[in-house]
Amino acid sequence: MTQVLGFKFSGVVAGIKKKAGTRDFGLIYAEQACNAAAVFTRNLVRASPVHLAEERVLSGKAQALLVNAGNANACTGPAGMEAALLTTKVVADALGIAKELVLPSSTGVIGQALPTQKMVSAVPALVAELSAPTSDDRAGLDHFAEAICTTDRWKKIASAQIESGGKTAQILAIGKGAGMFHPDLALAGQLPKPDGTGFSDMDFAGLHATMLVYILTDADVDTEMLREALLGAADRTFNASTVDGDTSTNDSVFLLASGLSGVKPSFDEFTQALTSVCSELAREMVRDGEGANHAVTITVRGLQNDAEARDVARSVATSPLVKTAINGKDANWGRLLMAAGKAGIPFDPDRAMVSIGGVCICENGQLKSAEADLAAGEAMKAAEYTIELTLGGGPGTFSYITSDLGHAYVDVNATYRS
Amino acid sequence: MTQVLGFKFSGVVAGIKKKAGTRDFGLIYAEQACNAAAVFTRNLVRASPVHLAEERVLSGKAQALLVNAGNANACTGPAGMEAALLTTKVVADALGIAKELVLPSSTGVIGQALPTQKMVSAVPALVAELSAPTSDDRAGLDHFAEAICTTDRWKKIASAQIESGGKTAQILAIGKGAGMFHPDLALAGQLPKPDGTGFSDMDFAGLHATMLVYILTDADVDTEMLREALLGAADRTFNASTVDGDTSTNDSVFLLASGLSGVKPSFDEFTQALTSVCSELAREMVRDGEGANHAVTITVRGLQNDAEARDVARSVATSPLVKTAINGKDANWGRLLMAAGKAGIPFDPDRAMVSIGGVCICENGQLKSAEADLAAGEAMKAAEYTIELTLGGGPGTFSYITSDLGHAYVDVNATYRS
Repeated sequence: MTQVLGFKFSGVVAGIKKKAGTRDFGLIYAEQACNAAAVFTRNLVRASPVHLAEERVLSGKAQALLVNAGNANACTGPAGMEAALLTTKVVADALGIAKELVLPSSTGVIGQALPTQKMVSAVPALVAELSAPTSDDRAGLDHFAEAICTTDRWKKIASAQIESGGKTAQILAIGKGAGMFHPDLALAGQLPKPDGTGFSDMDFAGLHATMLVYILTDADVDTEMLREALLGAADRTFNASTVDGDTSTNDSVFLLASGLSGVKPSFDEFTQALTSVCSELAREMVRDGEGANHAVTITVRGLQNDAEARDVARSVATSPLVKTAINGKDANWGRLLMAAGKAGIPFDPDRAMVSIGGVCICENGQLKSAEADLAAGEAMKAAEYTIELTLGGGPGTFSYITSDLGHAYVDVNATYRS
Repeated sequence: MTQVLGFKFSGVVAGIKKKAGTRDFGLIYAEQACNAAAVFTRNLVRASPVHLAEERVLSGKAQALLVNAGNANACTGPAGMEAALLTTKVVADALGIAKELVLPSSTGVIGQALPTQKMVSAVPALVAELSAPTSDDRAGLDHFAEAICTTDRWKKIASAQIESGGKTAQILAIGKGAGMFHPDLALAGQLPKPDGTGFSDMDFAGLHATMLVYILTDADVDTEMLREALLGAADRTFNASTVDGDTSTNDSVFLLASGLSGVKPSFDEFTQALTSVCSELAREMVRDGEGANHAVTITVRGLQNDAEARDVARSVATSPLVKTAINGKDANWGRLLMAAGKAGIPFDPDRAMVSIGGVCICENGQLKSAEADLAAGEAMKAAEYTIELTLGGGPGTFSYITSDLGHAYVDVNATYRS
């Protein structure tokens, strides 16, 4: 159990989720104001807590992270911002800190008014139950991780160590995400605006349930390094994972550094540990994808550059025909080539190589052998495996993680009002 | 029953489809060489018959359209082209015409060798059974329409009249399509090449089962007008429809004009009738979408231009969360706004208006009323209805047709090797 210095956690029942008695209101509190960075969804339709958290984190400082599940506080008009302002103010007052140091986040149903009265009533318990995890007791942390879940089947916590000059700092990440899951995250201050500014051709995933991630470290890292490292890590992990291709209105990743370990890592040392926890959470989220039985890594190689490889990997990872074939354990390499070919990136189909779970099934754009077809089908019985498409001799490569599409995804989403 | 002058049809059992005794080999034969145009899939991974048909139709002339179902002849290497050359040659010889006037097409499983021996053996029957439909007997046409089906639940035939100067010509279209259905068609000679030429940023749908369409008219139209009218009609119909967002390796639309009516329509007169049959077939294909119960038109209004409106309409039409909500008859306007917001097109979410089946459910980015929510849910019980998103005051508008995503789509695709 990682003990990251300087942070306390709590999660309580506020009565926001439909299911009675379920934790749905969480708080992370730092003993002192921390250096802070955050990335948020590029979806133009963003929830009020995203707008408020973006505005506040631009200061580079934060001391508390507030979250509710069961209600996204999105598409709620001016009342949505009032609700975010009110709840963070009540928490700031209870903690005795400036309201600007409290960053809000929400997940759940879109378009319904946030039940602020219930939340305000629960704030005293939320603050009273704050606790730092110890080797004997991590109740606060566990309750927080439970409180942020919606359709998640299990809670998600990852940790790593940051090694620097013979000393060790800790990094801890808590996340949720299972559907409306195709994060497309950009740094606070760099999000697209309705006036058309801030849009970037390359970075729109086009297609994700809310993902929320809270990353805490006791390393001593300045705000600029936090921002740069977080965007880089997000691009290779959260922004390279998908369940359904639908990018949420609420996706948010927060990163706070208390500095209490006294360890001052280099950019590379910090990025390595940060990417490790982000990667672990992204994989957990895809494994927990709504109705998913498989988490499959789609690796594309041989294109001109990584951006081209990413576009092809995303096209394959989001193809319903690929995802149903994964569900059916059908080594349908033809669909893999179809999904690669529709991405709008040039490559020579007659040179394409495809392997599934380490079994080369297609060479020079053709079936290698009936035996390979059978062996690849066997490899697809694994819960996790890799599909590799080598599409030329270029240096560009990128990996995307995706889940399968089966009946259970339909069951979760045909009636759930999210 | 339309009698389009100059064309004969047949469809026979060649033993290509797995299910024994099912028609799977079709032929359309014109009494004389016709002016011809075609659009094909922009997917970079294109089947051998697509390559051959593209090359041949560039001459502007064609006299026979050959098609098989049950095997896509895609990802079959050099043997794929040899098979397309051989089968069209045998048909040309049997008809006594030049092989360059025979345009091939295929649909079915990707990556398996075309059973040319079976096909060659069936050519005499295919030619012998050619017949022109009459008011009493349309067996040839019906057999052709059956022979091209794969996962289609019903055969698809549409017709219209071309009115010009008090005279009337006929147009007849036969199509198939139900899954791997998200046509992204471009004119022969303008398809993307592996060397990176021919790619266009705007036009990649990103995401379709093969669609095959055969359009025949006895109007007197030159090749240039055929090409321009076909691309325009395809962009507003086939290229604006989706079942699963997966663009096939084999999508092809052929247009032949015999001129035998003696009617010489204007571009607008011709385009109107052509668009009418294309629109009817596109709607039929989405209605017949694999596992679909609903065909829903997504109309986006108020953006800067039609291209922006199309990008947003496509993002909504391909969203799994929108499609599962349609399946569940859940008036989930929050997901509609989410899917619009992730398209990368600027608009003010706080001005967004959403109506479902004529019921305005969201105004100024917020729920209008609980009553509207209930009424919209009722409207979603219809097999066909329209969802409108008004996102500003601009002139840009576009409509896309989509189907719902339910268990049945998964059933068709988790095990079918397509």
